[in-house]
Amino acid sequence: MNDTTKIQLSGARLRVHYRLAERPERAAQRARAICVEQTVEFPRELLPEGPIPERVVGWVESVAPAGDDTTDVVISYAVETAGDGDLLQLLNLVYGNISIQPGIRLERLDLPEPVLAGFPGPRFGRSGLRRLLGVPRRPLLCSAVKPMGLTPVELAEMAYQLALGGIDLVKDDHGLADQRFCPFDERVARCAEAVDRANRVTGGRCRYLPNLPGPSERLGERVEVAKRAGAGGLLVCPGLHGLDVMRRIACDDAVSLPILSHPALQGSYLVDPRQGISHFALFGQLHRLAGADGCIFPNAGGRFAFTPEDCRAIARGTGEPMGALRRLFPVPAGGMGLERVGEMVEFYGRDVILLIGGDLHRSDDLVRRCRELRRLVEG
Amino acid sequence: MNDTTKIQLSGARLRVHYRLAERPERAAQRARAICVEQTVEFPRELLPEGPIPERVVGWVESVAPAGDDTTDVVISYAVETAGDGDLLQLLNLVYGNISIQPGIRLERLDLPEPVLAGFPGPRFGRSGLRRLLGVPRRPLLCSAVKPMGLTPVELAEMAYQLALGGIDLVKDDHGLADQRFCPFDERVARCAEAVDRANRVTGGRCRYLPNLPGPSERLGERVEVAKRAGAGGLLVCPGLHGLDVMRRIACDDAVSLPILSHPALQGSYLVDPRQGISHFALFGQLHRLAGADGCIFPNAGGRFAFTPEDCRAIARGTGEPMGALRRLFPVPAGGMGLERVGEMVEFYGRDVILLIGGDLHRSDDLVRRCRELRRLVEG
Repeated sequence: MNDTTKIQLSGARLRVHYRLAERPERAAQRARAICVEQTVEFPRELLPEGPIPERVVGWVESVAPAGDDTTDVVISYAVETAGDGDLLQLLNLVYGNISIQPGIRLERLDLPEPVLAGFPGPRFGRSGLRRLLGVPRRPLLCSAVKPMGLTPVELAEMAYQLALGGIDLVKDDHGLADQRFCPFDERVARCAEAVDRANRVTGGRCRYLPNLPGPSERLGERVEVAKRAGAGGLLVCPGLHGLDVMRRIACDDAVSLPILSHPALQGSYLVDPRQGISHFALFGQLHRLAGADGCIFPNAGGRFAFTPEDCRAIARGTGEPMGALRRLFPVPAGGMGLERVGEMVEFYGRDVILLIGGDLHRSDDLVRRCRELRRLVEG
Repeated sequence: MNDTTKIQLSGARLRVHYRLAERPERAAQRARAICVEQTVEFPRELLPEGPIPERVVGWVESVAPAGDDTTDVVISYAVETAGDGDLLQLLNLVYGNISIQPGIRLERLDLPEPVLAGFPGPRFGRSGLRRLLGVPRRPLLCSAVKPMGLTPVELAEMAYQLALGGIDLVKDDHGLADQRFCPFDERVARCAEAVDRANRVTGGRCRYLPNLPGPSERLGERVEVAKRAGAGGLLVCPGLHGLDVMRRIACDDAVSLPILSHPALQGSYLVDPRQGISHFALFGQLHRLAGADGCIFPNAGGRFAFTPEDCRAIARGTGEPMGALRRLFPVPAGGMGLERVGEMVEFYGRDVILLIGGDLHRSDDLVRRCRELRRLVEG
């Protein structure tokens, strides 16, 4: 192949931190292979001389032992290889093919301004959502209408009671899609109306967030239905829809609603510490790039296997500066109950959305139990 | 909660085979928890009597030891809980939340007609793609224009030579997005023209398949650009775009192009045999439901860690009957060379698309090397 390529590269590079399940010597070798795999995917010796081997192929920036036969490596890529504002190509560049090679965990992205500039991130973020809800300081409260199998009328009654009891965000359970026994349009209209009715009683600003189901042909229509019905936000599962679909909804000025992300189907990136994407990067960085104002995740000690360290990494990720992108709320969930509120607030601080579902129903009086929860976070 | 729910369920159920990294006794207990987690996600004792606990909650159909502290369980769900033609809710139902619980692998879906009816599947499938290409029997050949960093003019020249040499499908490398040094529109126009020009020389029917990059706002526009330019198919990464986005493109009559799926970012579902989705189900069933006419995956013995058993499961999955859905081609790839062609054809049979990339460039004469490959599969 002749050396005819004269592409222009600015010199700016994005840096990616990986943890390899290898000792340093072998890790250095694998890091060099990653540099090729994630960019040119072509035998290095057959590349034309010039910018491709010199600057399109990734650079190993550092290799450092991390103990226990693991090694931290940092690899940088020319920012132009990630495209402009193309979250899919960014994901592809940093973890596309190597997701299929065992023993490589994406730990953290360091994205320079030219890359970050392509992503507006959360439209509201922590302070914007607090403003919408009129809650300047205390931890926020979220609950879900559920279980699947109830009718829209029944779910709306539940939404009414949750809002009446002082919950700030009432979302659909993420299993509520557009099932025949609970059609999306009817559910959303009834629940939004019920929350509005409760707000007129309480003087509060509770918001109802419907879950966006497929098929993707109907996504625009669903969002419009939700807007027209007066929904106060949206629940989106980026592991189902795709991260870039969430980003598109988040940055659509015609939508302009806060978004809670749900981790359905993303667990395989998380549960094996020897591969996948770190809790920090997935929730704190990728969900943020994709515009979530809050990210739901299973808190330690519930029905899932996240450790306190995993949860701390998520909280840190959501709050850490990332260019001009707003911070998002951590939304610990997954079998939490009132008895854990104190501990959760101590752990996450006041900038948290506590998502409590089934436990609120352990009483004959849902409204009273919500008020009890509300007092706990106002205390 | 009062027993007011009177939802209608047909009685039809879809069955999901899971492998649990547990001994049978504990596995039976976890299976019961999965039945709740994936449906109502609500304390079982608080459910209203009637159809919700009886039929909306999943049923454990069987529990069978599978050796080595693993247990196979089959769980069935009411088909109505999956929605109608909603691939996202189907995915959510069968693996959404439990992807976050270690030790559960989705092995296989048994979908009854009412569910399958919602998914047309591959538009062309094996026989349709063979008809388009005019190749009734022999293994098909695919290669990629690459590496990233070449200009559209250089890539088009490569596409020309690949087509001239007798490759059936010339695709973009999946790292070619819409980078400034290689804009999508220009690349697609030039490569499609080059392949067309080669076809006029050879009398062949080689097809060029551009890679669809993000952002998702521009997806429709990109597909139109590709159609207008005369592209003969599309390369889609469902792990980036989302499986349902691929399905939407595949079943869009205005598009009507064959689709090759690429596994970028889906590796985390595959590489840890104790969790995720089996090779059989991911490629043979989910990529098929999402409309791929061929699924690219890393062949055993290349740069990735798939075993021959993994590859055999993919091949079986792509060819096994699945209602009225067409069979798709397995497309083994990932560092394959001419020296492995005989073995690959023996392994996969003639119903395969061999994807050979960099190895074709190990010669000064790309066209001659393609012809050599072509002779190998015609032999």
